[in-house]
Amino acid sequence: MKPIQVGLLGIGTVGSGTFNVLKRNQQEIQGRAGRGIEITMVADLDVARAQSVVGPDVKVVNDARAVIANPEIDIVIELIGGYGIAKALVLEAIAAGKHVVTANKALLAVHGTEIFAAASAKGVMVAFEAAVAGGIPIIKALREGLTANRIQWIAGIINGTTNFILSEMRDKGLDFDVVLKEAQSLGYAEADPTFDIEGVDAAHKVTLMSAIAFGIPVQFDKAYVEGITKLGAADIKYAEQLGYRIKLLGITKRTAAGIELRVHPTLVPAKRLIANVEGAMNAVMAHGDAVGTTLYYGKGAGSEPTASAVIADLVDITRLHTADAAQRVPHLAFQPDAISNTPVVAMSEVVTSYYLRLRVADEAGVLAKVTGLLAEAGISIDAVLQREADEISGEAATQTDVIILTHDCAEAKMNAALAQMQALPTVLQPITRIRKEELA
Amino acid sequence: MKPIQVGLLGIGTVGSGTFNVLKRNQQEIQGRAGRGIEITMVADLDVARAQSVVGPDVKVVNDARAVIANPEIDIVIELIGGYGIAKALVLEAIAAGKHVVTANKALLAVHGTEIFAAASAKGVMVAFEAAVAGGIPIIKALREGLTANRIQWIAGIINGTTNFILSEMRDKGLDFDVVLKEAQSLGYAEADPTFDIEGVDAAHKVTLMSAIAFGIPVQFDKAYVEGITKLGAADIKYAEQLGYRIKLLGITKRTAAGIELRVHPTLVPAKRLIANVEGAMNAVMAHGDAVGTTLYYGKGAGSEPTASAVIADLVDITRLHTADAAQRVPHLAFQPDAISNTPVVAMSEVVTSYYLRLRVADEAGVLAKVTGLLAEAGISIDAVLQREADEISGEAATQTDVIILTHDCAEAKMNAALAQMQALPTVLQPITRIRKEELA
Repeated sequence: MKPIQVGLLGIGTVGSGTFNVLKRNQQEIQGRAGRGIEITMVADLDVARAQSVVGPDVKVVNDARAVIANPEIDIVIELIGGYGIAKALVLEAIAAGKHVVTANKALLAVHGTEIFAAASAKGVMVAFEAAVAGGIPIIKALREGLTANRIQWIAGIINGTTNFILSEMRDKGLDFDVVLKEAQSLGYAEADPTFDIEGVDAAHKVTLMSAIAFGIPVQFDKAYVEGITKLGAADIKYAEQLGYRIKLLGITKRTAAGIELRVHPTLVPAKRLIANVEGAMNAVMAHGDAVGTTLYYGKGAGSEPTASAVIADLVDITRLHTADAAQRVPHLAFQPDAISNTPVVAMSEVVTSYYLRLRVADEAGVLAKVTGLLAEAGISIDAVLQREADEISGEAATQTDVIILTHDCAEAKMNAALAQMQALPTVLQPITRIRKEELA
Repeated sequence: MKPIQVGLLGIGTVGSGTFNVLKRNQQEIQGRAGRGIEITMVADLDVARAQSVVGPDVKVVNDARAVIANPEIDIVIELIGGYGIAKALVLEAIAAGKHVVTANKALLAVHGTEIFAAASAKGVMVAFEAAVAGGIPIIKALREGLTANRIQWIAGIINGTTNFILSEMRDKGLDFDVVLKEAQSLGYAEADPTFDIEGVDAAHKVTLMSAIAFGIPVQFDKAYVEGITKLGAADIKYAEQLGYRIKLLGITKRTAAGIELRVHPTLVPAKRLIANVEGAMNAVMAHGDAVGTTLYYGKGAGSEPTASAVIADLVDITRLHTADAAQRVPHLAFQPDAISNTPVVAMSEVVTSYYLRLRVADEAGVLAKVTGLLAEAGISIDAVLQREADEISGEAATQTDVIILTHDCAEAKMNAALAQMQALPTVLQPITRIRKEELA
């Protein structure tokens, strides 16, 4: 049988990796897929550079629509990124009857409903293993590996840039700004790192996992998103003293009120495996009612790790493209008629425990006032750590840090209590509030 | 469409879990699979007990062949275990045109070639996610998630009993025999624990992963198998002091000489995630040339975790049973015509590094003699730890322990050097030799 023909839109880091791995491992891949898989046409604005990557045997054009229009092409890989032209091209490829493989989490988290519906109507597959956690086959694990389960929660380190920054902050005791510059110079953070450090990229990914886990539509606009820019080295140090690590987690949870969908810095017990995932690595925990807790770990980004996921999708499509649609795995794990309208709950309704750090005047009665306000609000305290004033370096010895770990309470209740505590004259700086998850 | 009908052979722990999870989560499972999945017939020697588990609506018989002969049954789940009757029944089910789901690693590791060939000839699937690492979808990850990769090695904690014992030995400083009794009383070890503690169960599982990873036939008879019965609390303590943990690993590796296939206690750097997998949990590391190192963690045994894997296979079969065979994932990941004859190398050819513990007379020149023999053999030393004689509790102060970490050398060379060291009159007890893997 002649090889299945693939057109590639955008040959940057991941595209080059995909081309190279497909070529290098073609014998293994064909041995598994039962058919060769070849990238035969590439569209890239920089035709000369693209041609130098793929060599003279592959046709390179600067017009993505020429790839989509090519009747020889069975599968289109979209690696352009973003919501703009990428969306148009994915929809055009679907309309042309092409199967699509994409690593574009932003596109699917925002426009997934429209794109998956178009694909289902046309009878083609849109595969996106590479959109979440790079080389880790997490979409497959959630969508096929855990089909027996009523999934209860997912929590993941799904942004390598921020995990690298947090790991460096902890290792070296440095503040965010310093480590961000280091990460940029090492290529672990982009020149404009906003999407990573503000949690947007992680929110795109957890939105996709949430839909797959709970059988709900993708709803990026309902996600609570908080990044790591306000974390200080002090918080990481105090968390450590209390037996926790701080990680930027994407969390989605089934509760009686609906589905929680949130990204924020999170205290995690230091003994959990996920607390020990360092540097740019990714890891996703998934808890199902039958299987219990599982964890999946690997490289969440990079040329060949992401290519590994893109090619796994190519093999799946190669196997199933002649099968009727009923035999395929549904895009969002559940059949379209089984998608539920369980709501995503507002962040104010989310119940969790908290780490609070208050910079206070070092005088009698401060702790009593603060804890009194929490007691009045009905928020119970799990642990308190009050620093000796002279441990606060570079500050007047008249100030100190009070760290409080609370038991579970609703976010709205905590917000109200925080406003009252912040208004105390002895609370000298904005209070740091970090959510805590036991992940047991 | 009417539900796909499943017959269950053997309703013990895993069978009950499978029945219960299928029933409890039937709505979710049907929402994913697009079709109901029901166990409609059960065979078990204890009919009354079986009937009490499944209730009056399910037909229970004491003759497994009656299930296989039932034309309404599409899929047969084999949960009897062992090589004997289970083998006959699986082959009969295949001959009757039934798809088979099994958790029987022993059967497949030994008779897989025959069974998979029979299934392929008959056009049915034999699915076995539950045979390795319980609820962790590791077969799917290796067979489908990492299809892009030339897999280089796999290393796994794939026996919960032995990991529980090793965790307890480390936590409590106890010796093997004591902890084994505790594990038996807690139900973590069977009355006859031989298959677990001697490494046989882990060897069955790594044999299956090796075949899938490298595209070779299952060859349990070529596996090197060494259990944990000879480990002492002292070794665990010394390893810890050197920065390592001891785990029973199933390891399979691609080398220039062929495929390594081995199970033995292994020193692993304490900072690796897999070194921190505690209790009865399982974890598998897989390293591919594109994806790098990945890790999969979860419960490796138990009623519902194993049921999770059995049901994932039922869903896969439900999706694909009407598809032609070319659209299915090959049993051993590679198409039958792509299976290679790369040999499994003899243990004597395996190259690794070592931990050695020698109980020696506490007198001048002993270390010089021992290290001299290693130097003569061309084995270089990475680290030496010599205990003060008075640290050896309960022994005459005239003895001490010498611990040596070596660099890589071939097993045959180490065996020869060990024989020479053992012959020294100042070496007072059998030398403990534990292999070491960096898993970087």
